[in-house]
Amino acid sequence: MDEIRIFAPATVANLSCGFDVLGCCLDTVGDEMLIKKNDLGEVRITKLTGQDLPLETDQNVAGVAAKSLLGELGSKQGFDIEIYKKIKAGSGIGSSAASSAGVVFAINKLVGEPFSPEQLIPFAMEGERLASGNAHADNVAPALLGGFSLVKSYDPLEVISLPSPAELRMVVLHPLIEIKTKDSRSIIKQNVSLKKAISQWGNLGAFVSALYTEDYALLGRSLQDEVVEPIRSILIPYFDDLKQVAMDKGALGFGISGSGPSVFALCKGNDIAQNVKTAINEFYKAKAIDFELHLSEINTEGIKILE
Amino acid sequence: MDEIRIFAPATVANLSCGFDVLGCCLDTVGDEMLIKKNDLGEVRITKLTGQDLPLETDQNVAGVAAKSLLGELGSKQGFDIEIYKKIKAGSGIGSSAASSAGVVFAINKLVGEPFSPEQLIPFAMEGERLASGNAHADNVAPALLGGFSLVKSYDPLEVISLPSPAELRMVVLHPLIEIKTKDSRSIIKQNVSLKKAISQWGNLGAFVSALYTEDYALLGRSLQDEVVEPIRSILIPYFDDLKQVAMDKGALGFGISGSGPSVFALCKGNDIAQNVKTAINEFYKAKAIDFELHLSEINTEGIKILE
Repeated sequence: MDEIRIFAPATVANLSCGFDVLGCCLDTVGDEMLIKKNDLGEVRITKLTGQDLPLETDQNVAGVAAKSLLGELGSKQGFDIEIYKKIKAGSGIGSSAASSAGVVFAINKLVGEPFSPEQLIPFAMEGERLASGNAHADNVAPALLGGFSLVKSYDPLEVISLPSPAELRMVVLHPLIEIKTKDSRSIIKQNVSLKKAISQWGNLGAFVSALYTEDYALLGRSLQDEVVEPIRSILIPYFDDLKQVAMDKGALGFGISGSGPSVFALCKGNDIAQNVKTAINEFYKAKAIDFELHLSEINTEGIKILE
Repeated sequence: MDEIRIFAPATVANLSCGFDVLGCCLDTVGDEMLIKKNDLGEVRITKLTGQDLPLETDQNVAGVAAKSLLGELGSKQGFDIEIYKKIKAGSGIGSSAASSAGVVFAINKLVGEPFSPEQLIPFAMEGERLASGNAHADNVAPALLGGFSLVKSYDPLEVISLPSPAELRMVVLHPLIEIKTKDSRSIIKQNVSLKKAISQWGNLGAFVSALYTEDYALLGRSLQDEVVEPIRSILIPYFDDLKQVAMDKGALGFGISGSGPSVFALCKGNDIAQNVKTAINEFYKAKAIDFELHLSEINTEGIKILE
């Protein structure tokens, strides 16, 4: 196999109670990538459509992730990478993660799968380091593994795949304003009151439990965030109104996707998710902000090979 | 039914990664209580053996918990409470919780079970408030519900029962020095770095996941505590040595039980638990500190009615 075409999915990280440790994989939003072996012994970004992003290998998250993997293998194989971006950079739904995870998934396939999906995570994280200055795993892990991922620890890196109750749906609104992950991180306080931290880990534990027991209502009640949301939500136009609109239409919970500005509504079933999507659309189209709106199942497979 | 005799179990709260939200119920350590209706219209502590604790109803955790329940019912029924303490006060294995949970369990039975076990938790918490100034639920909940309990939130109070993998064993060492919960709480910092908090909730999420998947090794790896253990362990003689002894003998993890001074080693299977217990005994008996040492299964039933 000399080339492979893939779907590299968007992901929703943090999920309110799971700041920096939780993420899940979407199905209807994602990039396409075509990765081909070349005989030049170097990694090149040969095509990049849809977004204005660097083509220089060392400035491109896919380039950096690819070189990280090849470096570990000690491989001199070259690759041409074509990236058809559909996820906007700075959207908060894992644009850099899709490219980083996608390329390592693809190259791993093309060189005979020396690595398991879990083992690919650290290479993809190098792309995240370039994008945000922070090699976080809560987007690349669900992109590579599918479903819900919990980053148990970073040192050593340990990621746990959690179950995905079948009726879960994500409605994701992306207001077309840009918040860089770097900036969005910089406004977070580096200390948290023990009281709020306890509340956060109580909710995270409950969320994990509810994924196993398929307790949709408990999933919703666990989507609380007293630590980061009160600060970051200020950057997101009409955040509180949007949450109200979504909850009024039956969403299980509502929060910031990644570092924003995208927001998500977690819903049970297609009907409610459609109602939430419609209501958010009605609400936001009256505002002077362009936006994109997605509805997706949880993608339990992660990155997919396209024919 | 006019009287009831019960076993009120000891409990291990916090469990390293679950400070203030996680607890589990022991089987071989606990008090006995005899609760009888009286015709006096008042709650009395008529007997208390094994520990030097107040007999005045309003100064005794069982008295306060009983009155809290009866007050909610608007009941004028009186009760005589006999408490045969085997759990030492200030041990860190839920002595006050056993009395508080035991009495509300017993009275609930004697008045026709108007409340579910979950609904009894707030009444038992009033005993905890008297004991430590903090109405925490992480001991009374597992005492009432059995197994592992997660306190998702306090406002509103929501407790989730988690599964108990069958081979889990607890070895609990109680060095006979007294640390009051009040004092032990006062040395904890009221702020925590976001980095450590993230690490803590990553571990708690993993611990909850591992209870469902019966991943014993992951349970062990998740028993990490960078927030409280580094501070509280200073109060516990030979803490680091004890942890080393336990881990060398194959314990899954080791930490402080409640607010100490008791410590626990979580183990897989009786053989390892026995080895850990023996090794801790050998180590500690060479020190100038009296101690008690327990080995228990996880008690999935909670409080038990004795014939």
